Amino acid sequence: MAEIELGYTADYHVHLRRGEMMEAVAPAVRQGGISIAYVMPNLTPPVTDIETVIRYKKELQILAPKTTFLMTFYLSRLLTPQLVEKAAELKVIRGIKCYPAGVTTNSKAGVDLNNFTVFHPIFRVMQKHDLVLNIHGEKPSSINSKDGDAVTVLNAESKFLPALLKIHQDFPKLKIVLEHCSTKEAIDTIYDINKGLLDDETPTVCGSITVHHLYLTVDDWAGNPINFCKPVAKLPEDRLALIGAATSGKPFFFFGSDSAPHDISKKRTHINVSAGVYTQPYVLSYLAELFDKVGQLDKLKGFVSIFGNKFYGMDNEEKLVSKSKCYLVKKSVIIPKLVTHNSINVAVFQPGKTFSWSPEWR
Amino acid sequence: MAEIELGYTADYHVHLRRGEMMEAVAPAVRQGGISIAYVMPNLTPPVTDIETVIRYKKELQILAPKTTFLMTFYLSRLLTPQLVEKAAELKVIRGIKCYPAGVTTNSKAGVDLNNFTVFHPIFRVMQKHDLVLNIHGEKPSSINSKDGDAVTVLNAESKFLPALLKIHQDFPKLKIVLEHCSTKEAIDTIYDINKGLLDDETPTVCGSITVHHLYLTVDDWAGNPINFCKPVAKLPEDRLALIGAATSGKPFFFFGSDSAPHDISKKRTHINVSAGVYTQPYVLSYLAELFDKVGQLDKLKGFVSIFGNKFYGMDNEEKLVSKSKCYLVKKSVIIPKLVTHNSINVAVFQPGKTFSWSPEWR
Repeated sequence: MAEIELGYTADYHVHLRRGEMMEAVAPAVRQGGISIAYVMPNLTPPVTDIETVIRYKKELQILAPKTTFLMTFYLSRLLTPQLVEKAAELKVIRGIKCYPAGVTTNSKAGVDLNNFTVFHPIFRVMQKHDLVLNIHGEKPSSINSKDGDAVTVLNAESKFLPALLKIHQDFPKLKIVLEHCSTKEAIDTIYDINKGLLDDETPTVCGSITVHHLYLTVDDWAGNPINFCKPVAKLPEDRLALIGAATSGKPFFFFGSDSAPHDISKKRTHINVSAGVYTQPYVLSYLAELFDKVGQLDKLKGFVSIFGNKFYGMDNEEKLVSKSKCYLVKKSVIIPKLVTHNSINVAVFQPGKTFSWSPEWR
Repeated sequence: MAEIELGYTADYHVHLRRGEMMEAVAPAVRQGGISIAYVMPNLTPPVTDIETVIRYKKELQILAPKTTFLMTFYLSRLLTPQLVEKAAELKVIRGIKCYPAGVTTNSKAGVDLNNFTVFHPIFRVMQKHDLVLNIHGEKPSSINSKDGDAVTVLNAESKFLPALLKIHQDFPKLKIVLEHCSTKEAIDTIYDINKGLLDDETPTVCGSITVHHLYLTVDDWAGNPINFCKPVAKLPEDRLALIGAATSGKPFFFFGSDSAPHDISKKRTHINVSAGVYTQPYVLSYLAELFDKVGQLDKLKGFVSIFGNKFYGMDNEEKLVSKSKCYLVKKSVIIPKLVTHNSINVAVFQPGKTFSWSPEWR
């Protein structure tokens, strides 16, 4: 195959920041071969009001006029059911992101997992308006827990899964995405929930998968802050389960890069490295290389265009700001050591390596 | 207790480097409260001949005239049984360090675990001359192994343990130390080997334990290159097993800091961080704090002075270059952010934290 039509590609988990960093990375969405970007709300302060989310989207649209941006709120005590209802009616947000407090970049304002019921009124509104709940599914680390039930970066996701099942049980029609699945247990849980799903049915609970988790295991971030992210990449068997899911052709697994740019100074430090892997400018090249390598290139379109768009109700050309489609072509690209924009320098995933496929817009 | 007499303290695993770094760190052995230092041979090139080891010891002795240095060879194909025999007779080395190729700093010249028998003639000479075999007990990572038996930084030590048992079986009288034990499995294996050891018997196979592995778990090095070392710190239950062993009063567990200085530039990097935690200048303060916290301060002298010295035959004042003894006194110390010496800057373990005990020489 010399080229592959991917249609309206979507990345259902991107970090585009604010200010200079936003200027540097917002155009990279299209560069990476992505038409629709689902934008995370973990700014400082987090996005929790209608005015901010409208202004933020406007800024992004100016920087990347051909990218369709879908916006989100940050789940916190600052939200009210009334506010969420209004935002849904105005169609300024497509979903709400839930961060357990303290698990990743700018998650201090996040939710206390022991006190989830406080958000039930909001979940009710979300269910009613078909808003998506995007969950960063990790329990905060608790190394010194006396009951021998310690939570570490390695089992934080597995330990969270009962909470996911509980929300789904309490709100069976609420659309939920377990973001950036990183373990076999998470994949198995999403399969379990979707057991018996009919072919023409849209799933209610999905798992999104990044591209870097398809590449990395614990050895890759041990001693390589460039590959350090939350959730951390796990064991080889977890990676195999993720590859299996991404290439399964199942509609409940789709792409969300969690591409998370940090200035290089936040990565080149011996204490408190910022969590996040920046993949945006080359996401499709990374994905195509991997799908190709495992002989599943024909499954890429489902993973990166069809399933996510259907779940989010974006399988409708009318909703897009640009109708040009993404094609993968056999054209190699060498990843630069750093991406530079004004005073911003960002280390990009797989620096110096060569990838065989590149996106083109037609 | 306001003070504790520790006698002739020993650190049976130190990295003192060469050149400017050596000048910076050799005096820190005594500063940290250590009388006897067992010096690792992983220089570039590794220490594999008599002339080098004599010269190296002389250089160290000039920098730290009151520290007793015990020297080692680096196990590699460059050694011959004849050379080892001569070094033993001249008493210029006390042991030989075995690094599996590719597992840590300067281990390229190390041994191929699949071809261990090539060293049997050397082991025979070592056994005859009571030289100690110091083993970095990790299998090299092998993520893509087809048989599902992947080796990662997390199970590399556990996967090595059968090789340890095999060497002990083949050379039952060869003194062996499994260096820097980092897992419950390693601790259990050392216990198993020493089952039935009589009270007045000296063990043949011991485990050394660092101070940083008593403090750290995986969460501490995830995103903190200052705490990244090989073997990596593992899970909370592993840490508890290490604390249990260090404070057990068993003669087959003793102290070896694996203090490993790197210039800060090797730690402040987003790719290929150097493995190693620098603890030397404050080792006893770190150890005392931890033993105190778990109510086992009375077990510290065995761990840091008695057991290692007996195993290495250093329980004899005549072998020491200084007869002054180490005392722990209640005097708090704040760890600096960096240790600086000429153009060298080294990040030291637990920067900015306060510890309650300090060493004194009398």
